[in-house]
Amino acid sequence: MSSSTPETSTQPQPTIDARESIHTIPTHHSAAVFEQHGGPVEIKMVATPTPRGLKPGEALVRLIYTGVCGTDHHVLRGHWPIESKLPLVGGHEGAGVVVALGPGADAFVDIGDRVGIKWLADSCLACDSCRRGLEPNCDKAECSGFSRDGTFQQYAVAAAKHLSPIPAGLSLKDAAPILCADVTVYTALRRADLVPGQFCAILGAGGGLGHLAIQYCVYSGLRVVAVDTGEDKRQLCQSLGAETFIDFRQTKDLVDDVKRATTDGKGPHGALVAASSGAAYEDALKFLRPGGILVAVGLPGGAVIRAGVFDTVLNNLRLAGSYVGTRQEAIEALEIAATAKVRARYRVLGLSDLPAVFEDMEQGRIAGRVVLDLDK
Amino acid sequence: MSSSTPETSTQPQPTIDARESIHTIPTHHSAAVFEQHGGPVEIKMVATPTPRGLKPGEALVRLIYTGVCGTDHHVLRGHWPIESKLPLVGGHEGAGVVVALGPGADAFVDIGDRVGIKWLADSCLACDSCRRGLEPNCDKAECSGFSRDGTFQQYAVAAAKHLSPIPAGLSLKDAAPILCADVTVYTALRRADLVPGQFCAILGAGGGLGHLAIQYCVYSGLRVVAVDTGEDKRQLCQSLGAETFIDFRQTKDLVDDVKRATTDGKGPHGALVAASSGAAYEDALKFLRPGGILVAVGLPGGAVIRAGVFDTVLNNLRLAGSYVGTRQEAIEALEIAATAKVRARYRVLGLSDLPAVFEDMEQGRIAGRVVLDLDK
Amino acid sequence: MSSSTPETSTQPQPTIDARESIHTIPTHHSAAVFEQHGGPVEIKMVATPTPRGLKPGEALVRLIYTGVCGTDHHVLRGHWPIESKLPLVGGHEGAGVVVALGPGADAFVDIGDRVGIKWLADSCLACDSCRRGLEPNCDKAECSGFSRDGTFQQYAVAAAKHLSPIPAGLSLKDAAPILCADVTVYTALRRADLVPGQFCAILGAGGGLGHLAIQYCVYSGLRVVAVDTGEDKRQLCQSLGAETFIDFRQTKDLVDDVKRATTDGKGPHGALVAASSGAAYEDALKFLRPGGILVAVGLPGGAVIRAGVFDTVLNNLRLAGSYVGTRQEAIEALEIAATAKVRARYRVLGLSDLPAVFEDMEQGRIAGRVVLDLDK
Amino acid sequence: MSSSTPETSTQPQPTIDARESIHTIPTHHSAAVFEQHGGPVEIKMVATPTPRGLKPGEALVRLIYTGVCGTDHHVLRGHWPIESKLPLVGGHEGAGVVVALGPGADAFVDIGDRVGIKWLADSCLACDSCRRGLEPNCDKAECSGFSRDGTFQQYAVAAAKHLSPIPAGLSLKDAAPILCADVTVYTALRRADLVPGQFCAILGAGGGLGHLAIQYCVYSGLRVVAVDTGEDKRQLCQSLGAETFIDFRQTKDLVDDVKRATTDGKGPHGALVAASSGAAYEDALKFLRPGGILVAVGLPGGAVIRAGVFDTVLNNLRLAGSYVGTRQEAIEALEIAATAKVRARYRVLGLSDLPAVFEDMEQGRIAGRVVLDLDK
Repeated sequence: MSSSTPETSTQPQPTIDARESIHTIPTHHSAAVFEQHGGPVEIKMVATPTPRGLKPGEALVRLIYTGVCGTDHHVLRGHWPIESKLPLVGGHEGAGVVVALGPGADAFVDIGDRVGIKWLADSCLACDSCRRGLEPNCDKAECSGFSRDGTFQQYAVAAAKHLSPIPAGLSLKDAAPILCADVTVYTALRRADLVPGQFCAILGAGGGLGHLAIQYCVYSGLRVVAVDTGEDKRQLCQSLGAETFIDFRQTKDLVDDVKRATTDGKGPHGALVAASSGAAYEDALKFLRPGGILVAVGLPGGAVIRAGVFDTVLNNLRLAGSYVGTRQEAIEALEIAATAKVRARYRVLGLSDLPAVFEDMEQGRIAGRVVLDLDK
Repeated sequence: MSSSTPETSTQPQPTIDARESIHTIPTHHSAAVFEQHGGPVEIKMVATPTPRGLKPGEALVRLIYTGVCGTDHHVLRGHWPIESKLPLVGGHEGAGVVVALGPGADAFVDIGDRVGIKWLADSCLACDSCRRGLEPNCDKAECSGFSRDGTFQQYAVAAAKHLSPIPAGLSLKDAAPILCADVTVYTALRRADLVPGQFCAILGAGGGLGHLAIQYCVYSGLRVVAVDTGEDKRQLCQSLGAETFIDFRQTKDLVDDVKRATTDGKGPHGALVAASSGAAYEDALKFLRPGGILVAVGLPGGAVIRAGVFDTVLNNLRLAGSYVGTRQEAIEALEIAATAKVRARYRVLGLSDLPAVFEDMEQGRIAGRVVLDLDK
Repeated sequence: MSSSTPETSTQPQPTIDARESIHTIPTHHSAAVFEQHGGPVEIKMVATPTPRGLKPGEALVRLIYTGVCGTDHHVLRGHWPIESKLPLVGGHEGAGVVVALGPGADAFVDIGDRVGIKWLADSCLACDSCRRGLEPNCDKAECSGFSRDGTFQQYAVAAAKHLSPIPAGLSLKDAAPILCADVTVYTALRRADLVPGQFCAILGAGGGLGHLAIQYCVYSGLRVVAVDTGEDKRQLCQSLGAETFIDFRQTKDLVDDVKRATTDGKGPHGALVAASSGAAYEDALKFLRPGGILVAVGLPGGAVIRAGVFDTVLNNLRLAGSYVGTRQEAIEALEIAATAKVRARYRVLGLSDLPAVFEDMEQGRIAGRVVLDLDK
Repeated sequence: MSSSTPETSTQPQPTIDARESIHTIPTHHSAAVFEQHGGPVEIKMVATPTPRGLKPGEALVRLIYTGVCGTDHHVLRGHWPIESKLPLVGGHEGAGVVVALGPGADAFVDIGDRVGIKWLADSCLACDSCRRGLEPNCDKAECSGFSRDGTFQQYAVAAAKHLSPIPAGLSLKDAAPILCADVTVYTALRRADLVPGQFCAILGAGGGLGHLAIQYCVYSGLRVVAVDTGEDKRQLCQSLGAETFIDFRQTKDLVDDVKRATTDGKGPHGALVAASSGAAYEDALKFLRPGGILVAVGLPGGAVIRAGVFDTVLNNLRLAGSYVGTRQEAIEALEIAATAKVRARYRVLGLSDLPAVFEDMEQGRIAGRVVLDLDK
């Protein structure tokens, strides 16, 4: 016996032992699991990680709500040129409470903290991309619900340093859809680098990303030209503050209509393209003001931007792809949401409804976002 | 007679009368004229504008040298989707001396000033584009050798406010090719917004624009990965300071070679594409480091950039078209050239050689730039 | 008689003759004139310029309203290290209608246009400062109500290219105070380069510049910590959207209070100092977050910013002086005002009240801005 | 015995055990220790940390060379408003080789890696400052040779994530002075955000920071106006590429001379002030071109910048403090040094010479930098 003591003492000691809250952590919990690309999604009980099993820097989060994103559907169906782990628990818009900490994780969060799990599950903070503020392009990036199990479950292990603190005044339910759709849109608008008073066109303005983009534009003093189709989306866009709504199915000349929606008729200074059709990009390149910028968000599988060199050069146009946000951008987006000036429109369903939600996505029947109550 | 005095006095008086230098202005001068798209180019005598005929803000310039640019060839052949005036005196890289001034032009230049005439012949300085620093996108932009007669002649009328002062220490001959190729490249690198120590790939590095881009990169502390083909171009690029030369006809994997030319193997931070092939753009989008920027220069007629949305978004890539420079960018490029750290490589021919030069351009036989002595 | 024709034809012709509207221009009009520094200000009739007397590029404007700015008071009293012309018609926030044009002025405005005359009366658009977008630092800058007669009169001659078009939907009365106070504040916030969601402290928040700064911050998604004193100013600031108001006379620890007004307690990202006390600058340097920026606006005669090198370096702090706006910044500020989201609070008096207004300014009795009806 | 196994298994296991190289780590090593502020500095043997004693994320570095910086002298003498730990091993420009790793440190470096220890010894990478790219302003920042023992010793413990990899082709001796002086200057010039071809004045151009600033300016295409005093410094500055040298003791009008050193006489676009005199800042504010930027570097104890509000506002001037670099900025500076285009001028002494070096610093007798061979 006694010999074990000196042995232990010569081992490096983690600065902090794993800790867990008074919260009772079950042995198993509900999760939605994909066994293979294409589906199906099964709701079943899986083993809950133990606090003692947490690695350095990890936290165990009791998730209460999760958003469902179009990306989850792409991942399930295998629409992308890169493949997820299998079997997989999808989901990357999770909001919950920290219930246990691995060694060293308390440098980042504490037990009881209200936190979000976002798409970017981890990054090294040390590589060239991380050092230059491009964490999502980290050499070792991990993604929730893609390369790691995600948020379609009641308990998830997460890298503590990438958890997003949820500000006081923002409910977990409201926070969930902020964590992907909202951060993505916020980050994209930051990359557009527009100035208060300028015009921004939003293509796909009535969708999950678009309706948030309208709100961020209005919050930032940008004037919105919303492009989408249908009376419902017109009403939604206008109620959120879009100055103009153009129905791309009704207009005779989309490019001309968008230009005329700006006070001097020269077209918007920026365009956010949240639509997955290649044609949307080509329209945007035609109606942008000289020097204007088109920002592409979202990850449709095979869409291509075709930009004529002559016009792109002659008009000094710019295009930028914008992936997801960094830790800082997530925090900024959540802080803004906590002011209640930007809110996702969503309906609440239960985890058990997830297969039906994917069915509806397949058929294009989803309006706004869906948030799942993970206890239902 | 006496009645004319009161009449004159009630007319608005130009603040400054037209002035002319002691230089003797002839009645006619040599010019290269295109009567129709496709050619031919004829060298003939044309009437020289009189100082008294100059409009407010105009200057008469005695041109001594002019560069010949690929754009002149595109204009002659009618390669573009927009058409020039006809008949046309082409050319937009002219260097000479101011010999007469219209009313008010002395606010900008003086008689005897050494000046350059560049592609952007005039802009209003008052429209949205001009006010935002995008003079080349002016609503009323005029272009030398396109919408106005250009520099393939001994005397040209120019908007004084858009003449570029040629700094002491830079000869007219050396200044000529700076005025288009150089300003274009300088402006494009400014738009790339790279930081000293970063890597920039140049596609078409051994050509007219490319060999200047290498020099501006080196001057600015950027490390150059030159891409072009042939032993002559390799030697030229390396002599100008490119760290690496990759022959796109010899390499087995261009994308991989470009990435490996950067110290950490992650690819260049920027790429300047001066090649007219669409494939060059697609290569650049593959080898750029995350967050990297591709800047397109030059105005090939029909080239198209095809950018996959998935990869552009995932890698946070940016694309920018860069047209020509403003008055300020032209001045900056000339100032740098006057330090002798950036120099165009050219050979000197006479104005009468212009038809043969276009023939050589047609056949791809021109290496470097050509400067014409307008008195030969 | 006939001999006069050829003479005339050899003279340079202005491209456009002077034009005047059907509006009847009187021979004399009311103006407030300072004969010497220190005053007094006399309201008297002065000769109205004739349309035929306008120089190239000039316009005659029938002014209806003018704002009164603290700067006018400084100029009258001779508080500055540089001196104005004498005798002087002061004023630089004039709103009216163009009634006559000198030669060439129609390139910029038309008769009947609703326009504003701002502090920056003219700039050359050609010097280094103008070319770099710093028109107010033009070598040949002229200032309304300082180096040129200004807007405390019914008719004023102006450089057409620097007139600001007043957008439809914004009344001349509302436009007047936008032209200086508002443009100044707008420009200063642009120089601060803050990002939506960040905190901005405004020192002197309840004053003429400050109450507009609050509105621009709110419009731009910036969260405002207002610093001023008194219950009236508290109510004003909070009604305009300031999140926090700190009364510098009541607080025990201003620096601490400002820091605690930000969600994480680290202090605001920027501070706009519109107060004329040197102490305000020193406070701001203490409460700014690391990397924060202090922007100084306004031109108090002798105030000095004292910044300790140690703390400025250690905290990566930045300071910027921000003078007035360019033509573009004035247009942008007016466009935003036309959306009714930013409005100056002012009361309307008559031109004949100007001496009393200066008296009130001397005594610090002015709350908000004053706009003068020039016909009263 | 057997009972120890379950006990161990319930403890969190560090993912990586401490590792050490085949290098023999001694029990004691030479170090220069300050027992109290004001001195003296004693060279003595101290206990070498054991690999097993390393905490998570720590590395043990065998230092070969260290630079000596003016800051070390300030710390020794207690010149600053904040105090160092005591007793203290000073020094923050150390170059050596990693010989042992604590748990998890291999995510950042490997045994045998050539690395540098810089002023910023550690930062959390998680706080607001770190997330916004301002690591030196981290809430938990640790500084080498100030809050932690530094590099005036043969072995030092360091946070692995903040070690700077030394690129192939750069010797440890040459790398040492890069790690503070060079990174500081590089970072300051980045904050100035000047553009190739612009003029930068350097005040204190012949000193430890200044002579490096000249080289970075030249590397970046900036044109240097060097201000310092004495024939030796003139020769040094000019040999490094300064276009102009102005001896502030000889000139009759420093402000005028600096302005005239720029091609158009309007003054430099930026000024880097590496001098500790308050007067240098006031001069710089007078000779800067409108819109120009003054960057302050270095941490003199009590110097104050006095900036008149009137002129700062009128000329749109900017001031920025620039502390030290981030991990990324250190890497960038080292990469540039590895191209041999920027090199510190230094002489090599032994660790035992350190007391005499401080004596010379006290007397102002040090020219250039000093590098200590830690084995002497």
